[in-house]
Formats: sequence, C-alpha cells, structure tokens
Amino acid sequence: MEKIKVTIIGAGNVGTHLAKRFFEKKIEIIQIFSRELQKAEILAKEVEAKATNDLTKINDLADVYIVAVKDDAIEMVARQLPFKSKLVVHTSGAKSSKVFESHIKNYGVFYPLQTFSISKEANFEALPICIFAELASSQLILNQLAKRICPNVYVIDDEQRATLHVCAVMVNNFTNFMYVMAEDILNKEQLKLDILRPLIQETVNKIQKYPAQLMQTGPARREDKQTISQHLQFLEKYPDYHKVYELLSESIIQKYK
Amino acid sequence: MEKIKVTIIGAGNVGTHLAKRFFEKKIEIIQIFSRELQKAEILAKEVEAKATNDLTKINDLADVYIVAVKDDAIEMVARQLPFKSKLVVHTSGAKSSKVFESHIKNYGVFYPLQTFSISKEANFEALPICIFAELASSQLILNQLAKRICPNVYVIDDEQRATLHVCAVMVNNFTNFMYVMAEDILNKEQLKLDILRPLIQETVNKIQKYPAQLMQTGPARREDKQTISQHLQFLEKYPDYHKVYELLSESIIQKYK
Repeated sequence: MEKIKVTIIGAGNVGTHLAKRFFEKKIEIIQIFSRELQKAEILAKEVEAKATNDLTKINDLADVYIVAVKDDAIEMVARQLPFKSKLVVHTSGAKSSKVFESHIKNYGVFYPLQTFSISKEANFEALPICIFAELASSQLILNQLAKRICPNVYVIDDEQRATLHVCAVMVNNFTNFMYVMAEDILNKEQLKLDILRPLIQETVNKIQKYPAQLMQTGPARREDKQTISQHLQFLEKYPDYHKVYELLSESIIQKYK
Repeated sequence: MEKIKVTIIGAGNVGTHLAKRFFEKKIEIIQIFSRELQKAEILAKEVEAKATNDLTKINDLADVYIVAVKDDAIEMVARQLPFKSKLVVHTSGAKSSKVFESHIKNYGVFYPLQTFSISKEANFEALPICIFAELASSQLILNQLAKRICPNVYVIDDEQRATLHVCAVMVNNFTNFMYVMAEDILNKEQLKLDILRPLIQETVNKIQKYPAQLMQTGPARREDKQTISQHLQFLEKYPDYHKVYELLSESIIQKYK
C-alpha cells in the first residue's frame, strides 16, 4: 500500500475529526487550512502538519485534498485552489460532486455519515464513510484512504448520496426534534425527560434488530381514535406540536391502511 | 415487608411480562385471567398460578388485582369483578384511574412505561413503573410491589400520566415512524437502512447525556433553505413523506427562531 498524504481544508467539526483520525492512523497530513489562522495552527500542531489561512499557499505535496467547509463555500474554495489536476473531494451529504466540475478535473466526495460535535470523539469504528470519485483510479485511492480510518466504506454516487442525506435528516434531525418536543412539554409540566430515557433507548434497540415497519406501535398504528383525540386536546396549548402530532398520526394511519 | 399477593387479569404483552417478572421475584400470583382459557392456562402454569376465563370466578385472595387488558375493556372488567373493596389497578398510559370509579372503591394505576413485544424480554431494571392510587395506604402497597420488580418507581397522577403518554408517543411511536419513512425510501432506491444504523445509534447516545434542545442539528436548524428545497424536490415522488418533511422543517425553524 503506497503512502497516501492528505491536506485538509477547513478546521470545523468534520475537518478536525478527520485530521485527528488520520493522524491517529499514521496518515501524513501536509497542511491544515482555516480562514482563522489560529484555528489552523492549533489543529496543525496537534496532527504535525503545517498551517495556513491562504488558499493560494496550499501546496501540491498531498495526494488527496479534503474540502471540509460549509456547503456554500465549497465552490469558492475550489475556484481558489492553485492547481487543477490534484484529487479534491468534499465531505458534504447534500452537495453534488459536480460542484467542482468547472474548476477541478479530478474530483470526488469523502462523506462521513455521522453527526459530529466538536466536543465529542467521533466513532470511526461505527460510522460509515461514503466515497465517490469521477475517475476510477481516484476512487481506488479514496477507498484505500477511507479503509485506513474506518471499516465501513461504501461507494455511493451523487444521486444515492442525496437520497441518503434526506433519510439521514429523518432519522437524525427529525428524531431529535421528537425528543425536543417531549423535553419541552415535560419541562413545562414539571416532569423530566429522564423518565422516558429507557423508552427512547428501547425504541432504538428494536430498530437495530428488526425492520422499522414491523416495530410500529402506538395509538395511530392501532387507529385508536379516542386516544389520538385525547392527545390532540391536550396539545391545544402547544399549537405547533399539535400540528406535528396530527400529521404524523394521519401519516401512520395512511401508511398501515 | 409483608407478602403481597397479586392476580393478573389479561394474558397479553403487559400481563405476561408482569406475571413472569413477579414470579421471578418470588411474588405470589394467585390467578391469571384470560378470555381464552388456554392462554390463561399456559401462563398460569409458568408462574404457578390458577387459570380462569371467567371474571366472576376471580377470588378475593390477592392483595392487588392488575387489569392488563385493552383500554376499552378496562371498565367492562371492573364492572364484572365480584368484589368492590379490593385494590384494583390498570396498566394503561392513556386511561384515567377514574375509569374504575363507579365500580371499585379502591383503585389505582400500575403503568410500566415501556414498549413491550411478546417475544422480547422486558427490561425491568431499566424501564420505569408509574404508580398511583386513590388511597394513600394503597399507594404504599403499590410502591412496595413495584419496587420489588423495578428500581425506577414514580408516583404519577392521572394528569401527569396523560402528559407522559403524549410524550411517549412522540419519542417512541413517532421516532419509529421516522425510521419507517427512511427504510421505505432507501428500499425503494435500492439502498439499505443498515448504512444509517450508526447514525441512529449516535442520535440516541447524545440524548442520553445532553438536552435534546442543544443537540438539534441539520438543514432546518441552520435554516439552510437550499438543502431543504432540494430535499423537498426529491420527496415529490413520496407525497406523504413530503408533507412530513415540510412540516417538521418548518417546526424546527420556528422553534429556534
């Protein structure tokens, strides 16, 4: 296996977690870029790389350039990179790889499918990395690189990644919003989400083993209209949550008709 | 601690799990009732109790009578019980304890807050049991009984239990529906929910440690309208899920305004 060297553009959540993981796995990091020099320097020191806050100073010594910046900034970064033929990838779930097309010939995606928080260790043993490259030879390099830091590597094209991203929003962001609603109501009624934590855990345990469709329970699944209308009456003082409860109950009833 | 004896009316999910747990913890079970005699007999044998399918044959040897039947059948059971002064409780999250009022003097609730499946072991070490009784002396008995099988016992009145039940629907049933939607879309697009399992697990891990409100991420939280409208465009072929995505995104944006 040849030694792949990387440069990381962006020192936010994704950039930081990737840099640390590469370093841990003894993959050489050439440069860390951040618009804030200090941020770049702190991370660069930790992973024994050089820091810069000037995109035009990014050198051509790396094999893979990982652009881990906000979706809207990816194209701007691509435009300013001082080379055209190196392999450049972004880490976004939502952006097409085509965002690079008019600036970079050799492009792709290196998307760790996870919800990163800067304060929390990323679990690269569990999270999947979705890779894609325009050129087959580049795909091999990305696969090699991803495998070094993560056992679950999937080749996923732009269209599949878009689908995955929609579904990731559902199972991650929307699920969290269910917890937000419950937490908010319980706090306002002098109760605590703690009492529901075992139920929250059990709901997920089931889904790790069985198809979600078979695990659906509850008043809407049973078409228990009396309970649904009691709940909606209770939620009248929470009009936004009332709407959510009503639509989700209708959707579950429709789905199982 | 005096020896509390119980009789269990209903041999469905809740009745079965409770009976087995009482037996495991050496609490004497006098009778098991089920409309289907064979069902009552199988469970009764397992927990060394007597079986009956006749409500009028339920004797007065137990201290607590646990009515673990469908919500709509609770009152009918209460009406037919051949005594008025024994402690009778139901196991429902949705029904008021007042359902007993015109038939039973000494009533209450013994509600294990969990999603039971008949095939799966219930984890009484983790799930909470919510108890309530009209009479303080009965509340003491229920507390003693619950503590014997479960470390997390909460005294929860009818109003609080109604609130908890609404929130349990949100964190359990609605969350599962998020998984159902994702599973359905991924299957139709030749992808698998497996790839999202680590993300599903991570979403819950966070919530076991941090307030849900601080853990909200995603396009709606960032008011990333471009991604939201891409996702909605993708979901046009799934009109029911389109509605859910749209409303939940709006609700998240509103909540964090």
